Amino acid sequence: MSRIKAVFFDVDNTLYDTAMQVESARRNVVLAMIEAGLPVEEKVALERLKKIVKKYGSNYRFHYDRLMESLGLEISPRIVSAGLVAYANAKSAYITPYAETVPTLIDLTRMGLKLGIVSEGVPVKQWEKLIRLGVQHFFDVVVISEDAAGKTPQLFHEACAKAGLKPSECMMVGDRIDKDIAGARKAGLMTVLVMTPRYSRIKPKDDSETPDYVIRALGDLIKLIEDVNPKK
Amino acid sequence: MSRIKAVFFDVDNTLYDTAMQVESARRNVVLAMIEAGLPVEEKVALERLKKIVKKYGSNYRFHYDRLMESLGLEISPRIVSAGLVAYANAKSAYITPYAETVPTLIDLTRMGLKLGIVSEGVPVKQWEKLIRLGVQHFFDVVVISEDAAGKTPQLFHEACAKAGLKPSECMMVGDRIDKDIAGARKAGLMTVLVMTPRYSRIKPKDDSETPDYVIRALGDLIKLIEDVNPKK
Repeated sequence: MSRIKAVFFDVDNTLYDTAMQVESARRNVVLAMIEAGLPVEEKVALERLKKIVKKYGSNYRFHYDRLMESLGLEISPRIVSAGLVAYANAKSAYITPYAETVPTLIDLTRMGLKLGIVSEGVPVKQWEKLIRLGVQHFFDVVVISEDAAGKTPQLFHEACAKAGLKPSECMMVGDRIDKDIAGARKAGLMTVLVMTPRYSRIKPKDDSETPDYVIRALGDLIKLIEDVNPKK
Repeated sequence: MSRIKAVFFDVDNTLYDTAMQVESARRNVVLAMIEAGLPVEEKVALERLKKIVKKYGSNYRFHYDRLMESLGLEISPRIVSAGLVAYANAKSAYITPYAETVPTLIDLTRMGLKLGIVSEGVPVKQWEKLIRLGVQHFFDVVVISEDAAGKTPQLFHEACAKAGLKPSECMMVGDRIDKDIAGARKAGLMTVLVMTPRYSRIKPKDDSETPDYVIRALGDLIKLIEDVNPKK
């Protein structure tokens, strides 16, 4: 077995609680729009907004305009803007690392490991998260898949190549069986599922999606790496 | 002379220091982009960014992409995103009312006056400012001109009509001779130039652009209205 020389991380729900951030932001938006005059109950607006985000995708810019339209209302810049401000405030308040994220990144760096990000989505948005989390300087390698294929074995090979390492020398840490574990295992990396509050409870389809290790929180990585790396 | 029953305000540089906010935000953006790897000196980047904002307008979404291109660099999501986060942070930090803004709005409200906004620009952006300033609930009337014509006499007539008042019963307060004073005088409103830190030092072209009153700060409005309104 090769020595692990690099650890790659997923971003969303792995380095911070994305699901909580999204839910808090959405609630903040709806309350602010109601405060600004949206004549709808919170629950109704929330469910409608969820549908609109699903329909238009999370990177669409006019969710709140569409929300008003879909409620049969005239679009009001005052109400739309209240939503936009509330969203920006919630983003700045809730994109914060888990308690163990930064200490773990520091410990891994001290251990001489290279760190990286293997992510998918709009690059500027993924970088925004790393910067708001304040962790961007830890990573030597950042690869972000922009296309629908997502976290393919090729993407993991690209990350390993950028780190100057073989796949067997790299470890992928993420919360999703279907994305982080499946792709990385096929690419030949060591895989670790982290059971953060929203980790995927999806069952592996077969052995090719079964993580090599499961940890309860990011801090457990330190001991895991000490265990798997042959003593010098 | 009619009794003044409503006071309309300009937003930018009248209710808060927009110029300082824009300059601080721009500097914050450039420093963050350099910290993220932009290989240019602060002064060079600042001047180039100013030109790009001028060329594409302030509502364009890709200033930082164009900045990198114009410096002969490949667009980096990391660096662009650092700029976007820095801009958002500066916006949330610097869109704050002048010390006298809120107390004055409260005093005028206590005096039984209707308050309004006569502004120009993208409505969602102007509302965003009012909401971030936390003053949106003071205003019964908000009119925002979206077209290049700006603050025409018609726009002021629209504001008066919405307030249910004659132009002679309304007062316009702003920092710009060419926009706030010229248009409002032509429409028949009483006009007040407020010498906030960045008020326009433009000379009135003729008597039609000369303000009825000049005040040093928003707080002076209280005494001015007491003076101009006939005692009951």
